[in-house]
Amino acid sequence: MVPLRLYRHLIPQLAAAARSPSCAPRPISRLPALAMAAYGTGACADSKLLFRQLFEKESSTYTYLLADVGDPEKPAVLIDPVDRTVDRDLNLIKELGLKLIYAMNTHVHADHVTGTGLIKTKLPGAKSVISKASGAKADHSVEHGDKIYFGKLFLEVRATPGHTAGCVTYVTGDSPDQPSPRMAFTGDALIIRACGRTDFQGGSSDQLYESVHSQIFTLPKDTLLYPAHDYKGFTVTTVEEEVAYNARLSKDKETFKTIMENLNLSCPKMIDVAVPANMVCGFQDPPSKV
Amino acid sequence: MVPLRLYRHLIPQLAAAARSPSCAPRPISRLPALAMAAYGTGACADSKLLFRQLFEKESSTYTYLLADVGDPEKPAVLIDPVDRTVDRDLNLIKELGLKLIYAMNTHVHADHVTGTGLIKTKLPGAKSVISKASGAKADHSVEHGDKIYFGKLFLEVRATPGHTAGCVTYVTGDSPDQPSPRMAFTGDALIIRACGRTDFQGGSSDQLYESVHSQIFTLPKDTLLYPAHDYKGFTVTTVEEEVAYNARLSKDKETFKTIMENLNLSCPKMIDVAVPANMVCGFQDPPSKV
Repeated sequence: MVPLRLYRHLIPQLAAAARSPSCAPRPISRLPALAMAAYGTGACADSKLLFRQLFEKESSTYTYLLADVGDPEKPAVLIDPVDRTVDRDLNLIKELGLKLIYAMNTHVHADHVTGTGLIKTKLPGAKSVISKASGAKADHSVEHGDKIYFGKLFLEVRATPGHTAGCVTYVTGDSPDQPSPRMAFTGDALIIRACGRTDFQGGSSDQLYESVHSQIFTLPKDTLLYPAHDYKGFTVTTVEEEVAYNARLSKDKETFKTIMENLNLSCPKMIDVAVPANMVCGFQDPPSKV
Repeated sequence: MVPLRLYRHLIPQLAAAARSPSCAPRPISRLPALAMAAYGTGACADSKLLFRQLFEKESSTYTYLLADVGDPEKPAVLIDPVDRTVDRDLNLIKELGLKLIYAMNTHVHADHVTGTGLIKTKLPGAKSVISKASGAKADHSVEHGDKIYFGKLFLEVRATPGHTAGCVTYVTGDSPDQPSPRMAFTGDALIIRACGRTDFQGGSSDQLYESVHSQIFTLPKDTLLYPAHDYKGFTVTTVEEEVAYNARLSKDKETFKTIMENLNLSCPKMIDVAVPANMVCGFQDPPSKV
C-alpha cells in the first residue's frame, strides 16, 4: 500500500479559519445554534464525530454527513450527495449549525446526478472533491493516501478502482482521536453482500477484486462499511461480515470474475444523463462571480 | 412518571439459558459463527450492543435489530418487523450468529402487516411483545415501566399514547453498562420533524402532545431517536433536534392540536388488512404443535 502522506492543500482557508476562532467567518446557519453534543450513529460517544446516513429513494443512494462537532465551527463533509435531495441535506446542515466545507464523491456515478454542483451554487464556500483518476472536474482532485481534514477529524483516500477506474473509498483515521470503530465509505466498490458492476466506465473485475481485498478487507474487522447504495433496506455492514458473507467478493478471484462476467445487467437508465453531468461535478459551474 | 419495576416474567427460559452457558441451547445459526466484536451504529464501541437499522421501502418502515454481543448466546430483539422483510431479517440474524428472543411492536400498525407472526412460525423460540394497552394478542403484554432484557442490556417501556391508545416507546437503559448515548424507538409517536396522525385507533392529539413532552422530550438531549417510519430519507434524530425543529411538537399544545386537526389525510391504504392482522400478532398463530 502506498504510504499515507499529509495532503495539506486540502485544508483550504475555510477549514483553517475554522480552527482559528478569532478570525473565523460566521457560521452559515441563521437558526438558533444547537449546542450539539458529540453524538451520532456509528461513533463512540466520546468522539467528536456527528454522523448521519441519508437515503435517496429513487436511486437507492446513501449520502453521508460527517462533522467535527468538537471544533467551534463544526466543519462538515457530505459524501455522495444526490441532486434531488440537496435541499434536504443543506437544511439539515443549517439546523445542526454545521459548516459544509467539502461535497465529495466516491466516483462518477452512472445512476444519479451528484448534488455537488448544486451545493456549490447554493453554498459558495463548499468545495467539490473527487479522485484525480476519475478524470472529472472538481475543486480538489484527490489521490490514494491523501487525507481530507474537517476540523481535527479526517478521511483518508484509498484508491479502489474496478467499478470505475476512478473509484475511491474514504476511510476514517486510525489514531486514538479518530472515531472508533473505523468507518469506510466504499461507494460502489463494495455494497452490502455484493459490489458494483464492472462492465463500463473503465471497470475491471480483476481490478475490483484486488482493490477490495487489498484496501477494504485489510481494515480492522470491526470497521463499519457504508456503501453508496443499498436495494434491500440494509444500512451498514462490517469487514468481518463481508469477508464471510459477500456473495461475490468472498469467493476466489476466478469465481468472482466468472460471476461478474455473467450478470447480464441492462444499462443504467440514467447513464446518458448522469455520467456527462457528473464529469463536470454534477451541474453547470456556479456563476463566475462566485 | 411511574417508577420502573423489574419485569421478571419477560426473561423467559431461553434468555435465562443464554446467561448460563453450561445449559444453553445451541444457537440457531448453522453458519460459521462470527466472533462478532461489540460494534454497531449508534452505540459506543465499548458497549456490548450490536445495532442495525433496516428499511422496508414500500411502507417506509424501519425495523431495528439490537443484540447483546457481550453475552455468549448473543440474545437479540427486533422492533417493528415487517412481514415482507422477515426473511431478510432472519437471514441477517442467522449470519450474525444472534439468537432472536423477542419480536416487538411499538403499536398496532395501520400501514403494514407486522412480521411478528411470521417470525414465530419460522423461529418458534421467539416471543412476541406488544403493549397491554393495545389490546392486541402477544406472548408478552407490556406496561409502562417494564424492562425488557436481552442479555445484560434492556429496553424500558414508556407509554406514549396518542397516535394509538396503545403506543409505547422503547428506551435503552440509563445505567453505565447500557449504551451511551441512550436510544429511543419511538414508533409513530414521534417521527423525524413530525409525528403520527391522531385521527383513528384511539388517537388523541392532546394525549400525544403530553406523551412526547413527558416521556421523550425529558430524555437526555443527546438521546438518539429512531422512528418507525421516515418518508424523506432521514435515519435518526435526537431529542435536542426535535425539541428545536419538530414542525408540530415544538409548538405549544393548542397550535399542535390545530395542526393535527387540519391534516386532512386519506385513510392508510392497508388499514383494513393491517389492523385486524396486527391485532393478532400480524399473522395466524403458528401450528399448535409448536
